[in-house]
Amino acid sequence: MSHNFAIATSVTRVDTSQGDGAASFHAEVHEGWDILGNTNGGYLMAMAARAMSEVAERPPLTLTAHYLSPGSVGAHRIEVGTVRAGRRLATMTGSLVNATTGREVIRLLGTFGGRGESPDYRAGNPPEIPPYDECNVDRDGDDPDAQPVPELQRRLAVRLAPGSTGFRSGDPRGVAEVSGWFDFADGQPIDEFGLLLASDSFPPAVFNSGLPVSWVPTVELTVHIRGLPVAGPLAVIFRTRFVSGGVLEEDGEVWDSAGNLVAQSRQLALTPRPA
Amino acid sequence: MSHNFAIATSVTRVDTSQGDGAASFHAEVHEGWDILGNTNGGYLMAMAARAMSEVAERPPLTLTAHYLSPGSVGAHRIEVGTVRAGRRLATMTGSLVNATTGREVIRLLGTFGGRGESPDYRAGNPPEIPPYDECNVDRDGDDPDAQPVPELQRRLAVRLAPGSTGFRSGDPRGVAEVSGWFDFADGQPIDEFGLLLASDSFPPAVFNSGLPVSWVPTVELTVHIRGLPVAGPLAVIFRTRFVSGGVLEEDGEVWDSAGNLVAQSRQLALTPRPA
Repeated sequence: MSHNFAIATSVTRVDTSQGDGAASFHAEVHEGWDILGNTNGGYLMAMAARAMSEVAERPPLTLTAHYLSPGSVGAHRIEVGTVRAGRRLATMTGSLVNATTGREVIRLLGTFGGRGESPDYRAGNPPEIPPYDECNVDRDGDDPDAQPVPELQRRLAVRLAPGSTGFRSGDPRGVAEVSGWFDFADGQPIDEFGLLLASDSFPPAVFNSGLPVSWVPTVELTVHIRGLPVAGPLAVIFRTRFVSGGVLEEDGEVWDSAGNLVAQSRQLALTPRPA
Repeated sequence: MSHNFAIATSVTRVDTSQGDGAASFHAEVHEGWDILGNTNGGYLMAMAARAMSEVAERPPLTLTAHYLSPGSVGAHRIEVGTVRAGRRLATMTGSLVNATTGREVIRLLGTFGGRGESPDYRAGNPPEIPPYDECNVDRDGDDPDAQPVPELQRRLAVRLAPGSTGFRSGDPRGVAEVSGWFDFADGQPIDEFGLLLASDSFPPAVFNSGLPVSWVPTVELTVHIRGLPVAGPLAVIFRTRFVSGGVLEEDGEVWDSAGNLVAQSRQLALTPRPA
């Protein structure tokens, strides 16, 4: 068991004999990266992305994962396929399968490759979050009915903005938004794979809406990597604007401490009624 | 050649003997659904989605397409696979291949299934667009250097908002946004597949930014179907908030004429410099 993200999401190629850009990997889902026993979706995506990236020989640019069954601790197999490898971009498939149960956990499709040069345009700014030291460590409160803080948060040095924590004590502010700072507890640098984790690492924004929603299983998560962050914690904001027909979208923006946008995410999740 | 969207995106199952939820389809890309000779990306996505939906026996809920090579008129093959078919949702793969060249055009991954019940929450409104009859038919202007109006627009009854057409005459308003009304020219009703087309049917929002960007090839497009529209034209808005590192995102919202959100889209596109 490792609390180091790079180790806990490492993958080992087990079959280099396949042609056509296909390859198999072994990976071990570590303890301590879960939400109430279910392994975090960003962690699973990052693990699969490492295998896909190794075959693509390029970092992720846009990656989509569909969540099929809950992730759990133990041995997994990752199957990678190459759809098309061009000069600049490579499009890859991935599949993460629980080696014990044989059940597929996530299926992925992504395009990998370096970013290039372009004129810049920006019609948005980093979220306004109080300085890191003035934000809240996300700890369990005294209220036994409050939302428990997931084990995952103990791996991370997440600090939620003061306006984002109301749901933990049964006092959501009525706006489906959550923001704060993301970092690793052990201070390791954040690369593209860390950005994938950051894109799925906060409590669901809908928890602050005031709606009776307590469980938000992800159907699909897409992350666009927009840059590599400079050192320091990331400013992260997630917003849900529409809950309807049993589903919601959650949009994430991840900014580095120099004010550069480094990732955008969107997920579609289900909103089952509380039991 | 058909100008009827349902006919022009129809698919025919050619192999029903495959097990494991796999199937092959024949499809014909029709003339007249292109942008300067390249078949529209939403059209290609809708065509593949029809095949995936037929095997899933459910409508699309969230669908991601990665664009591999330009689409062109003629015979195509669609390969569909079933990743997981559950009670409510089915996750499917798709691949659209040009039958003449053998080149894969798009690869898809999506989850299909009905929407359900939930409490509603809404932190956004339909775009403010003047009434349909007061908006502009998107026709070629008198300026020979202006962006030409794609052939696709002659299949559609799109009306751009007055503030969205500046780029055609070399006078972009400096905000990467384009909005207007979407409908089919022949008045056919808009179903889930029509919503996929609507999500990729407008001139790129970045054309109104004032940046020197003249060509915006899509890498990946994800569409969430949020509802079936009531009769009447759709109010559509696309926004690009960040252009950097040679890529941009474009976010789309599609609303029906009763003010219901019916689709959300996001694409990642390249921003090559003009030659």
